[in-house]
Amino acid sequence: MARSPSEPTSAGGPGKPLLAVLRGERRDPPPLWLMRQAGRYLAEYRALRQAKGSFLNLVYDSDSAANVTLQPLDRFPLDAAILFSDILIVPFAIGQNLTFVTGEGPRLTPPLISADIDSLKPVPGRLDPIYQTVRKVKASLSETVTLIGFAGAPWTVATYMVAGQGSRDQSDPRRLAYADRGRFGALIERIEEVTFDYLCGQVEAGAEALQLFDSWAGSLAPRQFEDWVIAPTARLVARLKDRYPDVPVIGFPKGAGGKIRAYAAETAVDAVGIDETVDPQWANAELPDDLPVQGNLDPLALLAGGETLVRDVRAILDAFAGRPHIFNLGHGILQDTPVEHVEQLVELVKGGE
Amino acid sequence: MARSPSEPTSAGGPGKPLLAVLRGERRDPPPLWLMRQAGRYLAEYRALRQAKGSFLNLVYDSDSAANVTLQPLDRFPLDAAILFSDILIVPFAIGQNLTFVTGEGPRLTPPLISADIDSLKPVPGRLDPIYQTVRKVKASLSETVTLIGFAGAPWTVATYMVAGQGSRDQSDPRRLAYADRGRFGALIERIEEVTFDYLCGQVEAGAEALQLFDSWAGSLAPRQFEDWVIAPTARLVARLKDRYPDVPVIGFPKGAGGKIRAYAAETAVDAVGIDETVDPQWANAELPDDLPVQGNLDPLALLAGGETLVRDVRAILDAFAGRPHIFNLGHGILQDTPVEHVEQLVELVKGGE
Repeated sequence: MARSPSEPTSAGGPGKPLLAVLRGERRDPPPLWLMRQAGRYLAEYRALRQAKGSFLNLVYDSDSAANVTLQPLDRFPLDAAILFSDILIVPFAIGQNLTFVTGEGPRLTPPLISADIDSLKPVPGRLDPIYQTVRKVKASLSETVTLIGFAGAPWTVATYMVAGQGSRDQSDPRRLAYADRGRFGALIERIEEVTFDYLCGQVEAGAEALQLFDSWAGSLAPRQFEDWVIAPTARLVARLKDRYPDVPVIGFPKGAGGKIRAYAAETAVDAVGIDETVDPQWANAELPDDLPVQGNLDPLALLAGGETLVRDVRAILDAFAGRPHIFNLGHGILQDTPVEHVEQLVELVKGGE
Repeated sequence: MARSPSEPTSAGGPGKPLLAVLRGERRDPPPLWLMRQAGRYLAEYRALRQAKGSFLNLVYDSDSAANVTLQPLDRFPLDAAILFSDILIVPFAIGQNLTFVTGEGPRLTPPLISADIDSLKPVPGRLDPIYQTVRKVKASLSETVTLIGFAGAPWTVATYMVAGQGSRDQSDPRRLAYADRGRFGALIERIEEVTFDYLCGQVEAGAEALQLFDSWAGSLAPRQFEDWVIAPTARLVARLKDRYPDVPVIGFPKGAGGKIRAYAAETAVDAVGIDETVDPQWANAELPDDLPVQGNLDPLALLAGGETLVRDVRAILDAFAGRPHIFNLGHGILQDTPVEHVEQLVELVKGGE
C-alpha cells in the first residue's frame, strides 16, 4: 500500500493500532505499551508472585502466567499484552540449569565459559507451558490489543550462558568471542536454532508480533556488533519472515548508539526499539522516515512523575510525530514506580482520544 | 591558520605531534597514546605498586607517581605521558574519605546519598603532591612528548560521590538528579569548582593538554545528558579557555552514542574521545570535518592481538585518515594485555615513520 508519511491513518478505525503501526501506518495518538508492564510495580503481581514461591514457578504455571500477562490491561488501556516469561527460558530449554537468586538475579549453571557447548540438548516439552500461556492470553484478549511474543536476541542470551549470570560489561563473553570465534559462533547458532523454534511456537500459539530483546548489544565494538548482533538477528528475521510474512518483528538493540541505523538497515526488522539514552530527535533524523520506532521514555522519568514526566513525554511525542511510532519506555518499568504515574502517562499519551 | 583537511601537515617537523593534532593539524602517522598506559599490564608498574602497598600511596608519593607516569615511555615511542593519578582525587580533596578495596574498586565514605553536600570542604594541601608529580614528569619528558593532565568530568565524579562506589547503571545518582535537582545541581557545581582549580594547578605545574573523563556519560537520558554532562563540561571548558587559551581540552564522554555530535558542538572541547563501541566511519561522518578525534580501538582487540588487531587498527586509521586524529584505545588497557601486543600496535600505527 502506498502511504505518505505526512498523513496519519487513524481514520481507518482502531482495529489493532499496534499492528497497524508495525505495518508502517501512523496513528495519532500512538499505540502504547510498557516493557515489563506485568511486574513488581503492581500489587496484584506481587501477590501472585509470592503465592507461587518463585519466579520460575510463576512462568511455568500457565494459568498464573496468563493472569499476570493480562493484569496491566485490567488497569490501563494499553495496546499490547506481552507474554510473561523470561529471555533465559531458551538456555533452560537446551539444558542449562536456571535459578533466580533473590536480590542477585538469574544464575545459569554450569557457565559455558568452562563447559562444553555440545552438551546442550533440547529438553523435550520444556517450552510447552509457555505456549500454553500464549494460548490462554490470546483467548481472553480484547480485539484491539496485540499479543506480543518475545525472545532474547542470540548475543544477549549468549552473554548469560557464557558468564552464568548478568555481568557488568559482558567481559567473559566478549573475550570468548575474540579468543575462540569458532566456539562462540557455534554457541550463537545453537541459540539461533532454538530461538527460531521458540518464536515459531509462540506464533502458532497466537502471538501476533514478536520482539527480540538485545539488552547487552551496547557493549560490543562495531565489527563484533556486526557479527554477533546484526548477523544473527538478520538470519532469524529472514527465517521468521519466510514462514510468517505477516508477523512483524521489533528489534531492540539496547545501547546500540550510533550503530542503530546499520542495525535497522541490515537486520530488516519491522520496527526498532530505542533505549532511554537516545535523543528522540536525533533518532528521528537518523532512521528512515517510514521505519516504525518504539520508545523511549526514561523509566526514571516515569518514576519521578510531575513536570519532568510531562516534558519528556511531549518531547518524545513531538520528535516522532511524523513517523509510525509506538510509545514505550526505553527500558523496563522500575518496581517502585507509582501506579498513578502510569495513569498520568496514559493520559498524556492517549489524552486526545 | 587556514588549513585544508586534505593535506597532512607532517612536513612541519615533529615538534609535539599530539599538540599539533589538538590544534587541528593532521599528522600521518597519527600521534598515539593509550588510556591507562601506566598500569598493571607492565611488570615494572606491578613491582612499584606492590612496594608502595596501596594505590593511594603510589599516587601520593610523587617520585613514584612520576616514575610510573614515565614507565610506558621507556618501552614504547608514545606521543603522550598522562599524569598517574585517579579521578577520585577530587572528592578526596574536598573531604570524602577514599579507599581502594582490593578486587572491588574504590570506596568513598560517607556516600552522599545519605550525607550533607555542604559538609564538603577543601582539604588544604591535598592536591599538592599531584602537582609535584606533574612537575617531576615535565622535567624529564622528551621534547616530542606531550604531558596530559586530567580530571573526571563532574557527572562521573558525582556518580561515585553519591553512590560511594562504582555502580552498575549509576542508579542512585540518576535517581537523585531527578528527585532533587537542586541538591544534585549544587553537588555538580561544587565538583566543577574544585575541578577547575585542580586543572589550573596541573597546567601551572606543566600539563600541556587536559582530558576530561566522563566515564559514565552513557547512562543518561538526553535531557539529563544536557544538564549534567554537556552543561558542566561547557562551563569548565569556557573557564579553562579564558585562563589558558593555548591549553587544549579533550572531552571523553564514554557511551555518549548518538549524542556525541551535540557534545562536541555544545561543550567546545578541542577534541572528542570516542569509545570502542563507536563505528569509526560513522563517527567520522557524524562529527565536523576539522574536529580532532581520539580513539578508538577495543582494548579486547589489543588483548587478542594477531589478525583481529591488524584489521581493527587499519579500519580506525582508514576511517580517520582525512581528519586530525589521535590514535588511542576506546577504554583503558586491560591488565592482562601482553606487552608484545602493544609493540605490535605501535608498529601498526607508526610503522610508516
